[in-house]
Amino acid sequence: MNWKNVMGLVSLHVLVISFAMMLTTILGGTCFADPSQSIRTFVFVSIGGTLAGACGILMSGVRRPLHFNISLREGFLSVFLAWCIAVLLGALPFFVEARFTFADAIFESASGLSTTGASVVESEMRLRGGGVLNNGLEGLSKSLLFWRSLLNWIGGIGFVSFVMMIFPILGGGKPLYDAEVPGIKNTGDQLTPRIRDTTMILMFFYIGLTAVACGTYWLFGMDWFDAVCHALATIATGGFSTHSNSFAYFENSKLEWAATFFMLASACNFMLAIRLFMKRENPFKDSEFRAFVRTAVACSLLFASMIVIHFSKLNMLGVREVDVDFETALRTAAFQVASIMSTTGFATSDYVGWNLKGVSMIILLLMVFGGCAGSTAGGFKFVRLELMVKQCICELRRRIFPHMVPDIRLGGKSLKMPVVAQAMAFMVVYTVTILASTLILSFMQIDLETALSASVSAISNVGPGLGKISPACTWGFFPPAAKLLLSFVMIAGRLELFTVFVVLLPRFWYAR
Amino acid sequence: MNWKNVMGLVSLHVLVISFAMMLTTILGGTCFADPSQSIRTFVFVSIGGTLAGACGILMSGVRRPLHFNISLREGFLSVFLAWCIAVLLGALPFFVEARFTFADAIFESASGLSTTGASVVESEMRLRGGGVLNNGLEGLSKSLLFWRSLLNWIGGIGFVSFVMMIFPILGGGKPLYDAEVPGIKNTGDQLTPRIRDTTMILMFFYIGLTAVACGTYWLFGMDWFDAVCHALATIATGGFSTHSNSFAYFENSKLEWAATFFMLASACNFMLAIRLFMKRENPFKDSEFRAFVRTAVACSLLFASMIVIHFSKLNMLGVREVDVDFETALRTAAFQVASIMSTTGFATSDYVGWNLKGVSMIILLLMVFGGCAGSTAGGFKFVRLELMVKQCICELRRRIFPHMVPDIRLGGKSLKMPVVAQAMAFMVVYTVTILASTLILSFMQIDLETALSASVSAISNVGPGLGKISPACTWGFFPPAAKLLLSFVMIAGRLELFTVFVVLLPRFWYAR
Repeated sequence: MNWKNVMGLVSLHVLVISFAMMLTTILGGTCFADPSQSIRTFVFVSIGGTLAGACGILMSGVRRPLHFNISLREGFLSVFLAWCIAVLLGALPFFVEARFTFADAIFESASGLSTTGASVVESEMRLRGGGVLNNGLEGLSKSLLFWRSLLNWIGGIGFVSFVMMIFPILGGGKPLYDAEVPGIKNTGDQLTPRIRDTTMILMFFYIGLTAVACGTYWLFGMDWFDAVCHALATIATGGFSTHSNSFAYFENSKLEWAATFFMLASACNFMLAIRLFMKRENPFKDSEFRAFVRTAVACSLLFASMIVIHFSKLNMLGVREVDVDFETALRTAAFQVASIMSTTGFATSDYVGWNLKGVSMIILLLMVFGGCAGSTAGGFKFVRLELMVKQCICELRRRIFPHMVPDIRLGGKSLKMPVVAQAMAFMVVYTVTILASTLILSFMQIDLETALSASVSAISNVGPGLGKISPACTWGFFPPAAKLLLSFVMIAGRLELFTVFVVLLPRFWYAR
Repeated sequence: MNWKNVMGLVSLHVLVISFAMMLTTILGGTCFADPSQSIRTFVFVSIGGTLAGACGILMSGVRRPLHFNISLREGFLSVFLAWCIAVLLGALPFFVEARFTFADAIFESASGLSTTGASVVESEMRLRGGGVLNNGLEGLSKSLLFWRSLLNWIGGIGFVSFVMMIFPILGGGKPLYDAEVPGIKNTGDQLTPRIRDTTMILMFFYIGLTAVACGTYWLFGMDWFDAVCHALATIATGGFSTHSNSFAYFENSKLEWAATFFMLASACNFMLAIRLFMKRENPFKDSEFRAFVRTAVACSLLFASMIVIHFSKLNMLGVREVDVDFETALRTAAFQVASIMSTTGFATSDYVGWNLKGVSMIILLLMVFGGCAGSTAGGFKFVRLELMVKQCICELRRRIFPHMVPDIRLGGKSLKMPVVAQAMAFMVVYTVTILASTLILSFMQIDLETALSASVSAISNVGPGLGKISPACTWGFFPPAAKLLLSFVMIAGRLELFTVFVVLLPRFWYAR
């Protein structure tokens, strides 16, 4: 292990987060016109972080602008450490300025960076030193609200991408890229052979999509601040809102349809969208995209029908008591489905409050499924599901035809056994992590429904859950230990588990 | 597909179940002195079944006592059909004589044969035609109670074993054996090369163990009828009792310890026990046995401590209000742990009523784990867990050392990739089945905790669950459709899923 490399890489990440803070400071001081004491922390941390990052880079001796050689282990360790430090730095404004408790600040920061979007901010929130925050999110300063959305946005594409964009030094940092940006290499179809060029294209697409979303939101009636913050949180599939009522605050059906579209778009493989624009390729040729769109449409229609049937009750005179028109039902259903499938977590309605137990269970499954590979969405990813189903059918067939040679195809290509084995192992680690987290939570006397859905929601980076963490509630009631545990699960989920667990393996430290 | 072979094999199974009914008829008429109208059904079904079975064998033309060639597909289909017919035949006494509803009768029969032991019999149970059964299990005739236990016992070792014992014709029926007797071939260490000899040894051990359990129960204070019925249900890890309060009825600590021992013994690999007796081999050399025993001891101690701490509350004067001595706590904890880990389902206490959420979650996990391979217990089996953990660690290591050659060892032997792939596929199918069943149940407006634990309990053949199906409750409140679904899940779990799902595969029918 070359510790200088690790130090250099971590320092690069620290610089990125410091630059983001600097941006918040500037905007906070000018556009948002926040009082100077509420942006103090941002000023200090951004300056301190920049200095520390610069020192780290200088000391690590990686000044020369060449592709330095990073081993896989250095890549994994750097990414793990960088995310831990980023969560700590990101938590500082909440901790120092807004006087959140330690666990609350860490949770909010981890939830932001991992694009989970679960919040501990409630309408009457206890602070450090006995204070109380009134008005929930509306009681926070604009800089802090913007910082939450920015955390979402940085975490969305993985901040190694920002590192690569700002510091061309990292041209050869593939191990780093593999460790941090989820799913991208599963698709195996980079547009250009060099990882850095691919990243550039992806970054421009990411920034462009955010700009389009921002413009659309503004056109449909949000003010500039809300439009920017919500666009950042939407495209990152994060889900932090500037209002306690999330998207329900706006009561604007056009906005809801727009958000539904952008959430779903962010959960699709970005490469598909880029090839659609650059090469006019039909995205429906991709089996993962097809499965994703079909599931979204089917669930939306199912939920809409269930809402109409369930809520349009007849009273004793045969007159409908509550009249739900189909557009409202479909819009509400599609928004919640898009929000859960893209693992964003915005809400316009409380699906737990619908009291349809079948809906809750489907929502839980959609959380596990997640979005498509190569997107900003979390979860298990549809491509892995497809692979798993094919592998199981293959094994079933082998029971009757033992001499069959297994051949699992994805997009017309035969997959090698190790790829399949890796996906299966991922599923096992995913399940075990969910179960372990649920077990620990239930030892804190949290009921099974809440504990299980919190674990699933955290590992898939969704945001809301079932039971006590329905979209209408916050995660504030969890004991501090549970908040720290869930923060860890969220980060592990964002880094697709292996990156985190590999570092915890004894063999990682003893080898060579 | 040679349909004559299938018919012959199914007929052999029908004969076994008819013989079992005949035994019940004889005992019911003599020992239990049941009134003649309450054993009518048994008389008719046993005679009819014997005739039908004999006709089937004659028509299929497999009279010659030689090893006939069964293909894998014929084996799978025969076992599937045989179990379906056996469940129907087993349900007839409940349906005709005790006037259970159709769904109730099927559920009780499937629960018995699959050794689940979940019952729909409650203290005030609605019957067909508007009647009510009072007194729960105590209100049923002795023949019927004995029949329930006998169903457990036949299902425990898989009734292909009885077929092999009674009809030497089946010497070469390995495909049948593979399809029906779970886990046995995973151990890969048959004592003798011929499958029939192995079966004989296993059967004698099974019968012997049941006799020893029966004697022990009688010595410790049960009457003969209870001793026989409980011994049959214990060694099969079934869990049907003759009393509504299950083992709590006896209020006898010696009996509870004895049952704890026999439940755990039945969940260990029978081959290990046989080698212990025949070759004096130390069972602790087997890693699965070690893991099983360690888990049982650890969970018992943990639960016992939690019970003592939780229930020994101090009142305001500092005096203990409820005093739980450690022996009682440990006995209660060990009994419930043994009952769940062996997937038996007897109860002396209601763990849901303890109101310790951590305990409930551990119980749910233990249900999934199940017992050891090559035993009568259901569940995922410890040997598969071990294999899965090893595979995941191997895949984690491969992330850092991509050129590593994977080598997964079990009991000192290197496993081939297909074995690992099959175990992983089994885990996926297991999980998917649980989720699908939970989803369907929740569409019947059953809460998540009950639906999930019912699915887990059914697939692992345990008996009790969490929520509304705690050990103190019955499964009677489920809607009829849910009962039929759960019956299917129980049978699928008993046959280790693949046997059932293979038959449902289109390729199964179209091939060749």
